[in-house]
Parts: sequence; C-alpha cells; structure tokens
Amino acid sequence: MNSELVKTKASTLPPTLQWVGGIDGFLRLIDQTKLPVEEVYFDCNSVEQTHDAIYRLVVRGAPAIGIAAAYGVSVAIGTAMKEQADARKAALAAIDYLATSRPTAVNLFWALDQMRVVVNEATDQELADRVLQKAKAIHEQDRQTCAAIGQHGAPLLNGCRNVLTHCNAGALAASEKGTALAVIYAAHELQPELHVYADETRPLLQGARLTAWELARSGVDVTVLCDNMAASLMQAGKVDAVVVGADRIAANGDAANKIGTYPLAIVARHHGVPFYVAAPVSTFDRTLADGAGIPIEQRDAREVSHPYGTQTAADGANIYNPAFDVTPAELITAIITDQGIIQPVNAANVAKTIGLS
Amino acid sequence: MNSELVKTKASTLPPTLQWVGGIDGFLRLIDQTKLPVEEVYFDCNSVEQTHDAIYRLVVRGAPAIGIAAAYGVSVAIGTAMKEQADARKAALAAIDYLATSRPTAVNLFWALDQMRVVVNEATDQELADRVLQKAKAIHEQDRQTCAAIGQHGAPLLNGCRNVLTHCNAGALAASEKGTALAVIYAAHELQPELHVYADETRPLLQGARLTAWELARSGVDVTVLCDNMAASLMQAGKVDAVVVGADRIAANGDAANKIGTYPLAIVARHHGVPFYVAAPVSTFDRTLADGAGIPIEQRDAREVSHPYGTQTAADGANIYNPAFDVTPAELITAIITDQGIIQPVNAANVAKTIGLS
Repeated sequence: MNSELVKTKASTLPPTLQWVGGIDGFLRLIDQTKLPVEEVYFDCNSVEQTHDAIYRLVVRGAPAIGIAAAYGVSVAIGTAMKEQADARKAALAAIDYLATSRPTAVNLFWALDQMRVVVNEATDQELADRVLQKAKAIHEQDRQTCAAIGQHGAPLLNGCRNVLTHCNAGALAASEKGTALAVIYAAHELQPELHVYADETRPLLQGARLTAWELARSGVDVTVLCDNMAASLMQAGKVDAVVVGADRIAANGDAANKIGTYPLAIVARHHGVPFYVAAPVSTFDRTLADGAGIPIEQRDAREVSHPYGTQTAADGANIYNPAFDVTPAELITAIITDQGIIQPVNAANVAKTIGLS
Repeated sequence: MNSELVKTKASTLPPTLQWVGGIDGFLRLIDQTKLPVEEVYFDCNSVEQTHDAIYRLVVRGAPAIGIAAAYGVSVAIGTAMKEQADARKAALAAIDYLATSRPTAVNLFWALDQMRVVVNEATDQELADRVLQKAKAIHEQDRQTCAAIGQHGAPLLNGCRNVLTHCNAGALAASEKGTALAVIYAAHELQPELHVYADETRPLLQGARLTAWELARSGVDVTVLCDNMAASLMQAGKVDAVVVGADRIAANGDAANKIGTYPLAIVARHHGVPFYVAAPVSTFDRTLADGAGIPIEQRDAREVSHPYGTQTAADGANIYNPAFDVTPAELITAIITDQGIIQPVNAANVAKTIGLS
C-alpha cells in the first residue's frame, strides 16, 4: 500500500454534509445512525429536521454540528421565503432553536453566534444570500482547519506504529478529515504501516460504526476493541499514542470529550503513553476557567439498557448515561489545534495559541 | 426496606446449578445467555452438553464453572452406565474433555483434579455414587465458601454508600451469593441503603444482564453504566469502593478477571478508591509466580462486531477480543478470600492465607 493509493481511497468517502441547490436548497447529511450497514442520506428541508438530525446524531461531532447548525439557518430562511414569512425573524428563531439541540459541543454556539451577526447585519435583500454564503464559509473554513490540524499533529506520531482513538473525531465528525483522525490520516500518508486501534465507544458505538468504517474505506488498517480492552493493549506495549477529539475545552485546557476519554487518559498516563487531544480553536470556551463548568449532556437510558432495541439491562435497574466526561489538562500531553500545538497544556499556553485566531 | 425483606427476596433467586435425580440424573443450569429477558433452564444430559454449556457461557463465573464441570463427570458416568460402557474410562475422558471448555478460570482445573482423584480411587461398584457425592460436596463447599467471603469482606464496606462492581461475580457465578457480590450482599444486610453501580461489561454484558438482574431481584438498589463511565463517577466522588471477582490469581496476588478489571483498578488508584478482589482460595494458582503466565482466552470476534446479531463494527475492521485482563497485585487494596483477608497483597501474605486451606 502506498500513499497515492491511500489518497485515492480516502477520496471515496461520501461527504458528511452537503448543501444541495441554491438559497432555497436543503442540507443533505449522510445518516450516521445507519452506518456502517447502510449508506443513506437524510435531507433537512426544515429547521425542525435539522434540529432532529443533530439531536438524534444523524450528524454528530463538534465541528460537524456547528456546520449543520449554520446551514440550518439557511434552511429556515428558505422555508420562510416559501411561506412568505419574515425571513430574518425565522432565522433568529432558528438560531435560538438550534442552540437547544445539544448542550456540550461549543462549536454549535460558536457557529450560531457567527450566523447571528450576519442575520443582524444583512439587508432584507441580501439576507438569504449572505446567510448561505456564511454557512458555506464556515464549512470551507472547517476543511482548512482539519487540514491544518493534520499538518500540525502528524509529526507527533512520527515513528508510531499503533495509535489508539476513541469515538469518532474523523471525516464524519467534521467537513472532512476530522480532528483526531486528520492527524492520523496525515501521519498515515507518511507512514502507510500505521495501524489504528478504535475503541468501539459505548453506548452508541461511534468507534466501531463510524471510525472503523471511514478508516477501512480510506485504506487505513484498523482494529476495533471494546472500550475496556485498551488498558490490556497498553500493558502489552501495543499502543504508542492516543489521539482523541474534543467537544469543548476550557481556558486552562481541561477537555470535554465523549464519555470514556477520561479513563483512557488516566490509563495512558499510567503506562507512559502520550495522550493527545486534537481540536480547532473554535472548540475552546474562553468563558470557562476550567472544566468544572462544562455542561454534561445526560442522554436517554435506553441507549444503555436497550442497544439496537434488544433489552440488555435487567428490569428494575437504574441507568447512568452521561454523553461526555472531562479530562483534566494535566493528563493531556498536548492539544493539537489548527493554530499550532499547545504543550504543556496550561492556561498561559492556551491563551498564547487561541489568541492567534 | 429491612434486612429480613432483603433475605426473603434473595431466596427467590432461582438456583444457578442443580443436580436433578440420582446417579443417572442430569445437571440443570439456569441459561445465563437468556437472562434477563427469559428465565429458562438448560439441561446437561451428556458431557458434550456440559462442555457446550461452559463454552457458550450458559454457566459462567469461576466457581460455577468448577461445580458444573464436577457434575459433568457424573453426567458422563450416567451416560456410560446407560450405554453399558466403561464408566471409569468415560469419567477420565470427560475430565480431559471438560478441561478444554475454557482456559482461564483455574477453579475448573481445581475441581476436575479433585474429581480425578475420586475416579481413580473408587472401586467399580462405588464409582458412580462417590463421583456424584464428590460433585455435590464441591457444590456444598462453594456455598460455605461464598458465605465465608461475605463475612470476611463485609466489614471492609463499613460506611460505604456506593460500591462499584464489574462483570458478574454473584449468585450466578457460583453456588449462591457469589464472591464479590457475597461481600455486597453481606454488607447490604447491615446497611440496607448500600447502592451498587454495575458496569455493563462489554462484550457480553454480564453486568447489565446478570448482576443487575440478581441484585434487583434481591432488593439491592442497582444502577447500570457503560464500562467507560466509571471514571466520571469516581471523579465526582460517587464511588466509595470497587469489588470484583477473579478467575485466576497468581502466587504474588496478580489477578486475572473479566476484561475491563485492570483499567478499573488503575482508575480507582488514580482517585484513591479502594479496589478489592473477592475469590475463594481455589482461585489461586500456586504454580504461577505472577500474572504473566496466566493464559488469556481470546474469544470470537462476533461478540464484539455483532452484538445480539446486529452488525456494529464496520466491514474491513479487525477485532480484538480478549476475555480477561490481569491486574497487578500493587493495584489491589486487598484480596477477600474464604480464609481471610490478604492485605497488603504480596507473595508472603498470599502464602500465609492460602496455606491455611
């Protein structure tokens, strides 16, 4: 396998998000709830469908949620135009409504804040055009962001044979390439023998379903394991580095990411394995001094008790189902951003890097 | 809820294993692959069915595997008698065959070694009776062992409000009460407000399916979580102690147990939470100086890639599926045995305690 082949294969990944048509068009998403068995699309023709798509994880991953929400404002304007309603009012209502779709990923609020500025500034005549242009710009900016994260991060994996990741912070979590997987894709182009261990990531199995799917499709050798098996690999010396994404990072570098990231960081530290977080600067929440203030989404008990509709947890048991946990900065070897590497991870170094954005 | 009520409810648990009939009888198991949705029994009328039941986890848990295998020798003798074959030869062949059913739990070999002594010593006339008596004695001895583990361990949970366990080391893993859960049941009688967090335990979800089922049936308040969520509970100060079972313990106290136990021990140490292993002295393997020599069973990839028949892992991905991991003695606060507490856990203290057996 050479890097040209890998590149060709990577380009066969279907787009995670695409805008179809003009200002009265719609947002088309690959339905991530159906992967890896079915490759079907979910079209958002209303703001309610866009909200539903984010809430139900048809689209997920912090950067992708932000892009989807931005397009959702365009969807709202298109609907208002067809119904001859007040487009600006509809756009502002959509921004407020879409902000309720998921609580933890700060990229959602970051994207919606940018959309709000445009909605407030544009004249009536230019509103629809400028909103769609802005959504497309956020989408395009994310492509460049992913590429930059990959370029900054790849040298950290120099000489690594086996890298472990958790959940999906890949092409399916962003415009393309992703965050953690952007680093892995970039490293893989330099070292085609790089092998990835993908935690399956209970309860919704984004690692088994999504990360394994996009890596295998891209020609990257991948092995799926249950989340509780990573430590035994590290004990056997089979993991050279861990790379994960993030949904929100506080000003001191404490990082919220998919549940299971925090124990992975502890276990990596125990074995002396470097633990990297990859995220765009839009994932940083400057309003939070540390991770204690990050809101953690609690999700439906049935995600744990009835995977794929099959009852697994006994009747009479309570269920605990937080979607995220917070990894303290001191367990993170470095944060890989589109603006450069933050290492060691602390408030001063975070300010230095995200101040450049 | 008072402890009398708890006792009454506990007694409603169906037996994990029972011998039905006389020397030509059979072994009846509650089919643990069907719990918690169905309570059905699996009858072993041949040594092949007994082997199959152990291999397919119809019966599982180190002590229960030993008891089932002991009865399996009686099943073999019954079959030989019906077929007018050589009963002693059949019994010895059954011992060899049953020893291949699962590789890690040492209780299996411990029980079969005892059966072999009886098979070799008994006269032709007394063979069937003595073998069945011995299997029943191993079964009865385990009941006493479970009770002793509970009595020794309960004081360690004095004042604990929330205890976390992994997999199932309960009534379903032994004759009754279990090992880790024997400690919890005994503590619960003294402190009815004791609440248990049960890791679901991927891939086969013994925690969600079995531990939650038997605790809820016994009137113990239980909450199921995914394995990767335990660290966030500890971070929030919501776990006062961890208690798990073991499948094989080396002479220095290194303990093999269900995959996911080792990261739990690391995470508990990180948070200063006591980490207890509960096991009968029959779980110790004196022939192994440390855990490096414990054979680790690798199981079918489909347990990970196709839970309950639904494909979750993408095509093209490799699968890693070890059934156990090894927790080094230095991460274990104490080992609770039927002969007393080993603390601190080291070779000298292990020798002192298991030497009494």
